Amino acid sequence: MMSLEAQQSPPDRATAAREGCPLRDVLDRVGDKWSVLVVICLSEGTQRFSALRRRIEGISQRMLTETLRQLERDGIVQRTVYAEVPLRVEYALTPMGQTLIEPLAALADWAEEHRAAIVAARERYDRAQRRAGGDQQ
Amino acid sequence: MMSLEAQQSPPDRATAAREGCPLRDVLDRVGDKWSVLVVICLSEGTQRFSALRRRIEGISQRMLTETLRQLERDGIVQRTVYAEVPLRVEYALTPMGQTLIEPLAALADWAEEHRAAIVAARERYDRAQRRAGGDQQ
Repeated sequence: MMSLEAQQSPPDRATAAREGCPLRDVLDRVGDKWSVLVVICLSEGTQRFSALRRRIEGISQRMLTETLRQLERDGIVQRTVYAEVPLRVEYALTPMGQTLIEPLAALADWAEEHRAAIVAARERYDRAQRRAGGDQQ
Repeated sequence: MMSLEAQQSPPDRATAAREGCPLRDVLDRVGDKWSVLVVICLSEGTQRFSALRRRIEGISQRMLTETLRQLERDGIVQRTVYAEVPLRVEYALTPMGQTLIEPLAALADWAEEHRAAIVAARERYDRAQRRAGGDQQ
Protein backbone atom coordinates (compact mmCIF):
# COMPACT_ATOMS: atom_id res chain seq x y z
CA MET A 1 0.00 0.00 0.00
CA MET A 2 1.26 3.44 -0.86
CA SER A 3 1.98 5.97 1.81
CA LEU A 4 -0.77 8.45 2.56
CA GLU A 5 1.77 11.25 2.92
CA ALA A 6 1.19 13.65 0.08
CA GLN A 7 4.89 14.51 -0.06
CA GLN A 8 5.80 10.96 -0.96
CA SER A 9 2.95 9.71 -3.05
CA PRO A 10 2.13 12.29 -5.77
CA PRO A 11 5.18 11.47 -7.92
CA ASP A 12 4.02 7.84 -8.07
CA ARG A 13 0.49 8.87 -8.88
CA ALA A 14 1.70 11.34 -11.51
CA THR A 15 3.87 8.63 -13.07
CA ALA A 16 0.94 6.25 -13.07
CA ALA A 17 -1.24 8.88 -14.74
CA ARG A 18 1.38 9.46 -17.42
CA GLU A 19 1.52 5.75 -18.17
CA GLY A 20 -2.15 5.81 -19.11
CA CYS A 21 -3.02 3.46 -16.27
CA PRO A 22 -6.61 2.83 -15.31
CA LEU A 23 -6.22 4.80 -12.05
CA ARG A 24 -8.52 7.54 -13.29
CA ASP A 25 -10.85 4.94 -14.67
CA VAL A 26 -10.92 3.07 -11.35
CA LEU A 27 -11.37 6.32 -9.41
CA ASP A 28 -14.21 7.31 -11.68
CA ARG A 29 -15.97 4.08 -10.83
CA VAL A 30 -15.30 3.84 -7.10
CA GLY A 31 -15.91 7.56 -6.58
CA ASP A 32 -19.18 7.57 -8.53
CA LYS A 33 -21.98 8.54 -6.15
CA TRP A 34 -24.19 5.55 -6.99
CA SER A 35 -21.32 3.08 -6.65
CA VAL A 36 -20.47 4.57 -3.25
CA LEU A 37 -24.06 4.22 -2.06
CA VAL A 38 -24.40 0.65 -3.40
CA VAL A 39 -21.16 -0.47 -1.74
CA ILE A 40 -22.17 1.18 1.56
CA CYS A 41 -25.59 -0.53 1.37
CA LEU A 42 -23.99 -3.92 0.64
CA SER A 43 -21.58 -3.43 3.54
CA GLU A 44 -24.55 -4.47 5.71
CA GLY A 45 -24.71 -7.83 3.92
CA THR A 46 -26.19 -9.63 0.92
CA GLN A 47 -29.21 -7.94 -0.62
CA ARG A 48 -31.68 -8.41 -3.41
CA PHE A 49 -32.13 -5.89 -6.20
CA SER A 50 -35.50 -4.69 -4.88
CA ALA A 51 -34.07 -4.06 -1.40
CA LEU A 52 -31.16 -2.05 -2.82
CA ARG A 53 -33.55 -0.04 -4.94
CA ARG A 54 -35.70 0.81 -1.87
CA ARG A 55 -32.65 1.79 0.20
CA ILE A 56 -31.03 4.02 -2.39
CA GLU A 57 -33.78 6.51 -2.99
CA GLY A 58 -33.55 8.43 -6.23
CA ILE A 59 -31.76 5.68 -8.17
CA SER A 60 -33.58 4.46 -11.26
CA GLN A 61 -33.96 0.75 -12.05
CA ARG A 62 -31.74 1.21 -15.08
CA MET A 63 -29.02 3.08 -13.16
CA LEU A 64 -29.00 0.48 -10.37
CA THR A 65 -28.76 -2.34 -12.94
CA GLU A 66 -25.86 -0.59 -14.68
CA THR A 67 -24.06 0.30 -11.43
CA LEU A 68 -24.31 -3.33 -10.20
CA ARG A 69 -23.14 -4.63 -13.58
CA GLN A 70 -20.06 -2.38 -13.52
CA LEU A 71 -19.27 -3.26 -9.90
CA GLU A 72 -19.61 -6.96 -10.77
CA ARG A 73 -17.33 -6.51 -13.79
CA ASP A 74 -14.74 -4.80 -11.55
CA GLY A 75 -14.81 -7.76 -9.14
CA ILE A 76 -16.29 -5.63 -6.32
CA VAL A 77 -19.77 -7.17 -6.28
CA GLN A 78 -20.75 -10.84 -6.59
CA ARG A 79 -24.09 -11.59 -8.26
CA THR A 80 -25.68 -14.93 -7.38
CA VAL A 81 -28.72 -16.35 -9.18
CA TYR A 82 -30.77 -19.00 -7.37
CA ALA A 83 -32.80 -21.27 -9.65
CA GLU A 84 -36.08 -20.74 -7.86
CA VAL A 85 -39.51 -19.62 -9.05
CA PRO A 86 -39.56 -16.67 -9.15
CA LEU A 87 -35.84 -16.39 -9.87
CA ARG A 88 -33.91 -15.06 -6.86
CA VAL A 89 -30.89 -12.82 -7.54
CA GLU A 90 -28.70 -11.63 -4.71
CA TYR A 91 -25.84 -9.18 -4.57
CA ALA A 92 -22.96 -9.17 -2.10
CA LEU A 93 -19.53 -7.60 -1.79
CA THR A 94 -16.62 -9.81 -2.85
CA PRO A 95 -13.59 -9.99 -0.51
CA MET A 96 -12.02 -7.19 -2.61
CA GLY A 97 -15.27 -5.21 -2.34
CA GLN A 98 -15.09 -5.54 1.45
CA THR A 99 -11.74 -3.75 1.43
CA LEU A 100 -13.37 -0.79 -0.30
CA ILE A 101 -15.80 -0.15 2.58
CA GLU A 102 -13.30 1.67 4.78
CA PRO A 103 -12.03 4.27 2.26
CA LEU A 104 -15.53 4.84 0.88
CA ALA A 105 -17.07 5.21 4.33
CA ALA A 106 -14.34 7.72 5.19
CA LEU A 107 -15.19 9.72 2.06
CA ALA A 108 -18.93 9.54 2.79
CA ASP A 109 -18.25 10.63 6.38
CA TRP A 110 -16.21 13.58 5.09
CA ALA A 111 -19.06 14.55 2.77
CA GLU A 112 -21.59 14.39 5.61
CA GLU A 113 -19.36 16.21 8.04
CA HIS A 114 -18.72 19.08 5.61
CA ARG A 115 -22.12 19.16 3.97
CA ALA A 116 -23.30 22.34 5.69
CA ALA A 117 -19.98 24.13 5.06
CA ILE A 118 -20.15 23.19 1.37
CA VAL A 119 -23.74 24.41 1.02
CA ALA A 120 -22.72 27.70 2.72
CA ALA A 121 -19.65 28.04 0.45
CA ARG A 122 -21.83 27.54 -2.63
CA GLU A 123 -24.25 30.22 -1.49
CA ARG A 124 -21.38 32.66 -0.87
CA TYR A 125 -19.87 31.87 -4.27
CA ASP A 126 -23.19 32.28 -6.09
CA ARG A 127 -23.90 35.59 -4.32
CA ALA A 128 -20.43 36.88 -5.27
CA GLN A 129 -20.99 35.80 -8.86
CA ARG A 130 -24.35 37.61 -8.96
CA ARG A 131 -22.75 40.76 -7.52
CA ALA A 132 -19.93 40.58 -10.07
CA GLY A 133 -22.55 40.13 -12.80
CA GLY A 134 -24.45 43.18 -11.47
CA ASP A 135 -21.27 45.28 -11.49
CA GLN A 136 -20.68 44.48 -15.13
CA GLN A 137 -24.12 45.57 -16.22
CA MET B 1 -17.84 12.66 12.66
CA MET B 2 -19.89 9.59 11.97
CA SER B 3 -18.69 6.16 12.92
CA LEU B 4 -17.05 4.14 10.20
CA GLU B 5 -18.79 0.99 11.42
CA ALA B 6 -21.21 -0.07 8.75
CA GLN B 7 -23.60 -1.44 11.36
CA GLN B 8 -24.10 1.97 12.89
CA SER B 9 -23.89 4.40 10.03
CA PRO B 10 -26.09 3.19 7.16
CA PRO B 11 -29.37 4.18 8.84
CA ASP B 12 -28.07 7.75 9.15
CA ARG B 13 -26.88 7.78 5.57
CA ALA B 14 -30.15 6.27 4.39
CA THR B 15 -32.09 8.91 6.33
CA ALA B 16 -29.94 11.64 4.86
CA ALA B 17 -30.56 10.26 1.36
CA ARG B 18 -34.30 10.22 1.97
CA GLU B 19 -34.24 13.86 3.04
CA GLY B 20 -32.89 14.85 -0.36
CA CYS B 21 -29.65 16.11 1.19
CA PRO B 22 -26.69 17.03 -0.96
CA LEU B 23 -24.71 13.96 0.21
CA ARG B 24 -24.93 12.36 -3.22
CA ASP B 25 -24.20 15.70 -4.79
CA VAL B 26 -21.13 16.18 -2.57
CA LEU B 27 -19.97 12.60 -3.20
CA ASP B 28 -20.38 13.11 -6.91
CA ARG B 29 -18.06 16.09 -6.74
CA VAL B 30 -15.42 14.82 -4.35
CA GLY B 31 -15.38 11.37 -5.94
CA ASP B 32 -15.10 12.71 -9.49
CA LYS B 33 -11.81 11.51 -10.95
CA TRP B 34 -10.63 14.97 -12.04
CA SER B 35 -11.50 16.53 -8.67
CA VAL B 36 -9.56 13.76 -6.92
CA LEU B 37 -6.50 14.36 -9.09
CA VAL B 38 -6.68 18.17 -8.71
CA VAL B 39 -6.96 17.93 -4.90
CA ILE B 40 -4.07 15.44 -4.75
CA CYS B 41 -1.94 17.74 -6.94
CA LEU B 42 -2.77 20.77 -4.79
CA SER B 43 -1.90 18.78 -1.66
CA GLU B 44 1.72 19.55 -2.62
CA GLY B 45 1.04 23.28 -2.39
CA THR B 46 -0.17 26.31 -4.33
CA GLN B 47 -0.03 25.91 -8.09
CA ARG B 48 -0.78 27.84 -11.24
CA PHE B 49 -3.24 26.66 -13.85
CA SER B 50 -0.52 25.75 -16.34
CA ALA B 51 1.35 23.63 -13.78
CA LEU B 52 -1.84 21.76 -12.86
CA ARG B 53 -2.58 21.15 -16.50
CA ARG B 54 0.91 19.69 -17.07
CA ARG B 55 0.66 17.45 -13.98
CA ILE B 56 -2.79 16.04 -14.76
CA GLU B 57 -2.19 14.53 -18.14
CA GLY B 58 -5.29 13.94 -20.20
CA ILE B 59 -7.33 16.78 -18.69
CA SER B 60 -8.53 19.37 -21.19
CA GLN B 61 -8.21 23.10 -20.51
CA ARG B 62 -11.99 23.35 -20.33
CA MET B 63 -12.35 20.41 -17.92
CA LEU B 64 -9.61 21.76 -15.63
CA THR B 65 -11.25 25.22 -15.64
CA GLU B 66 -14.64 23.70 -14.79
CA THR B 67 -13.22 21.34 -12.13
CA LEU B 68 -11.39 24.24 -10.43
CA ARG B 69 -14.50 26.42 -10.63
CA GLN B 70 -16.64 23.76 -8.95
CA LEU B 71 -14.02 23.07 -6.28
CA GLU B 72 -13.79 26.82 -5.61
CA ARG B 73 -17.59 27.05 -5.39
CA ASP B 74 -17.60 24.18 -2.88
CA GLY B 75 -15.05 26.00 -0.71
CA ILE B 76 -12.38 23.34 -1.32
CA VAL B 77 -10.06 25.41 -3.52
CA GLN B 78 -9.02 29.06 -3.12
CA ARG B 79 -8.33 31.01 -6.31
CA THR B 80 -6.07 34.05 -5.96
CA VAL B 81 -5.51 36.57 -8.73
CA TYR B 82 -2.37 38.74 -8.57
CA ALA B 83 -2.60 42.03 -10.45
CA GLU B 84 0.58 41.54 -12.43
CA VAL B 85 1.32 41.62 -16.13
CA PRO B 86 0.72 38.98 -17.29
CA LEU B 87 -2.02 38.24 -14.76
CA ARG B 88 -0.96 35.57 -12.27
CA VAL B 89 -3.67 33.20 -10.98
CA GLU B 90 -2.87 30.65 -8.29
CA TYR B 91 -4.86 27.81 -6.83
CA ALA B 92 -4.52 26.35 -3.35
CA LEU B 93 -6.52 24.13 -1.04
CA THR B 94 -8.58 25.93 1.59
CA PRO B 95 -8.40 24.64 5.20
CA MET B 96 -11.51 22.55 4.43
CA GLY B 97 -9.86 21.30 1.24
CA GLN B 98 -6.85 20.18 3.31
CA THR B 99 -9.12 17.90 5.33
CA LEU B 100 -10.17 16.15 2.12
CA ILE B 101 -6.61 15.00 1.31
CA GLU B 102 -6.61 12.05 3.70
CA PRO B 103 -9.87 10.35 2.58
CA LEU B 104 -9.10 11.03 -1.09
CA ALA B 105 -5.54 9.75 -0.80
CA ALA B 106 -6.90 6.60 0.89
CA LEU B 107 -9.31 6.09 -2.01
CA ALA B 108 -6.57 6.73 -4.59
CA ASP B 109 -4.29 4.29 -2.73
CA TRP B 110 -7.05 1.68 -2.78
CA ALA B 111 -7.50 2.20 -6.53
CA GLU B 112 -3.75 1.81 -7.13
CA GLU B 113 -3.42 -1.18 -4.85
CA HIS B 114 -6.29 -3.03 -6.54
CA ARG B 115 -5.68 -1.84 -10.08
CA ALA B 116 -4.28 -5.15 -11.36
CA ALA B 117 -7.03 -7.17 -9.66
CA ILE B 118 -9.71 -4.95 -11.21
CA VAL B 119 -8.19 -5.21 -14.68
CA ALA B 120 -8.07 -9.02 -14.26
CA ALA B 121 -11.68 -9.11 -13.00
CA ARG B 122 -12.81 -7.10 -16.04
CA GLU B 123 -11.05 -9.48 -18.41
CA ARG B 124 -12.67 -12.49 -16.71
CA TYR B 125 -16.09 -10.84 -16.84
CA ASP B 126 -15.75 -9.90 -20.51
CA ARG B 127 -14.59 -13.42 -21.42
CA ALA B 128 -17.57 -14.91 -19.57
CA GLN B 129 -19.92 -12.51 -21.35
CA ARG B 130 -18.45 -13.46 -24.73
CA ARG B 131 -18.83 -17.16 -23.90
CA ALA B 132 -22.44 -16.62 -22.79
CA GLY B 133 -23.05 -14.69 -26.02
CA GLY B 134 -21.51 -17.56 -28.01
CA ASP B 135 -23.75 -20.10 -26.27
CA GLN B 136 -26.81 -18.16 -27.24
CA GLN B 137 -25.92 -18.04 -30.91
